Amino acid sequence: MYVIGIDIGGMSMKWGLVNGQGQVLFNEHVVTIPSESPESNIKRLVVSINSALLQKNIAKNQVKGVGVGCPGIINSKEGIVTEASNLNWEMFHLQQSLETLLDLPVKIGNDANVAALGEVKFGAAKNYHNAIMLTLGTGVGGGVIIDGKTFEGNQGTGAELGHMVIDFNSDVSCTCGRKGCLEAYASASALIRLTKEAMLKDKNSKMWETANNDINQVDGKTAFLTYKQSDDNAAHEVISHYISYLACGIMNFNNIFRPEVFILSGGVAKEGSLLVELLKKECEKYSYGFKLSPIPEILIAKNGYNSGIIGAASLYF
Amino acid sequence: MYVIGIDIGGMSMKWGLVNGQGQVLFNEHVVTIPSESPESNIKRLVVSINSALLQKNIAKNQVKGVGVGCPGIINSKEGIVTEASNLNWEMFHLQQSLETLLDLPVKIGNDANVAALGEVKFGAAKNYHNAIMLTLGTGVGGGVIIDGKTFEGNQGTGAELGHMVIDFNSDVSCTCGRKGCLEAYASASALIRLTKEAMLKDKNSKMWETANNDINQVDGKTAFLTYKQSDDNAAHEVISHYISYLACGIMNFNNIFRPEVFILSGGVAKEGSLLVELLKKECEKYSYGFKLSPIPEILIAKNGYNSGIIGAASLYF
Repeated sequence: MYVIGIDIGGMSMKWGLVNGQGQVLFNEHVVTIPSESPESNIKRLVVSINSALLQKNIAKNQVKGVGVGCPGIINSKEGIVTEASNLNWEMFHLQQSLETLLDLPVKIGNDANVAALGEVKFGAAKNYHNAIMLTLGTGVGGGVIIDGKTFEGNQGTGAELGHMVIDFNSDVSCTCGRKGCLEAYASASALIRLTKEAMLKDKNSKMWETANNDINQVDGKTAFLTYKQSDDNAAHEVISHYISYLACGIMNFNNIFRPEVFILSGGVAKEGSLLVELLKKECEKYSYGFKLSPIPEILIAKNGYNSGIIGAASLYF
Repeated sequence: MYVIGIDIGGMSMKWGLVNGQGQVLFNEHVVTIPSESPESNIKRLVVSINSALLQKNIAKNQVKGVGVGCPGIINSKEGIVTEASNLNWEMFHLQQSLETLLDLPVKIGNDANVAALGEVKFGAAKNYHNAIMLTLGTGVGGGVIIDGKTFEGNQGTGAELGHMVIDFNSDVSCTCGRKGCLEAYASASALIRLTKEAMLKDKNSKMWETANNDINQVDGKTAFLTYKQSDDNAAHEVISHYISYLACGIMNFNNIFRPEVFILSGGVAKEGSLLVELLKKECEKYSYGFKLSPIPEILIAKNGYNSGIIGAASLYF
């Protein structure tokens, strides 16, 4: 039996046929057109799926179901996209729409949450049942897995892990309207901001070299690269600050959820074992003093490009 | 059918017979002796229960089960008190012990979590299924109810809601070893600290009068009382600061859990409707900008003195 995984994004709707081992046998995508109605977008997606299944000789009765990950507030119980501002969708009955058009059972979930589920079912956190995934990209996305299932909060509006204020007196505004959120300190965008600030303060920092002496070329890797290649003070300070902010968030979530494992994904997670090593060292300092509760495992996500598709399909595994 | 609810604390072990309406028909207590073994403490408790049941002509087959709330890290699945430092108990098989001695089925849980459950089943949050209770006392305790059940985190070590850092650069130490935790700003102890600091800064504040010109007489009510009785600047500032810290915590939990309701208990919650009104006004400012997600209800706990017993009994309702 197969499962179809659909990963809806603001640019494209990716989908793939996934087998019981979480392998994507083939995938395709159609462009998302936010100016069109959600129904019209979904129809184009369904044409792509139906024609590919026909072409590959996959009968509908070989498909157990269709899992969908969608950005925004997703009411997975009701099968409704409550609000997805990137897509311009609101109160859209996505599950019902797809079930009618595809003649297959459909489950939907928030994209960050299903990506976390995919890592627990088939990725880095296989064999764990309680996990928190933090996606360190433009923002800080969150996925919460409790007892092997996604936790989305009442009516799918929770698990907004990036929007936890960690610096009460901060003057750094967050996209959510508050100041001092984790997202404002632990996202890739925040790392870039911290890097630029440090470079402007220290004109002799080797980070200038790394960025080809052009502040506009600074990205999420600039400070990490300089850190690894030198003992540049400014770079070491940037990384140290970034790690302590992220560790603060992780330890907050640890005290709240006590997951078995944290999974990191997104741009910053590409730093891999160095990131994990630095984080673990920092987290250990702040572990709530229960001698029987060591700090949880920290792992880098594994599902990569197909994480959205695998995650969505995981709703049926 | 009845349920026995047991509320274990560092000073005493209270227990009561609870009916299906969550009413405590009678209650008794025995003293807790942390220097004695947990088994010996439990034996004294069981003697109290057995003799009272006999005296009141309650047969064991009229008792559906025994719910227990206990401080510390409680592994409710395994029925073990992993660590309760107030009691000096560690890795104690409380469920098994009580089942053997009482010849009744037993369920155990963390005291803060079962108190929250009691409010959802029989108290302020009746008819809600997703709730967060914050106990504003010496510390900040947390109880999390998801889909009508307590959420305790992996192996019962989570839901430590007081130990979420909200002020990254704070120099206020928390009992957990970190600085700037919610507990260090939103507990009754924190309110007392804020009050004293403001009084020492403003020798003309009317709070001095409220505290009989003796800083040692300051308690959690001093600032609230002065606030209600006057337009004293210092008192208004203390309350405004306290409310904004607590609201920061509430909105953090809201973005993480999106409960239907927050329940406040503990000393500070005695301020009642004034506290709720001020908090709601502050929370509204920081609601994550989802037009379809209004701020949750904020209510004051109702179960009072018997909240531990009712909460523990709720494990069987």
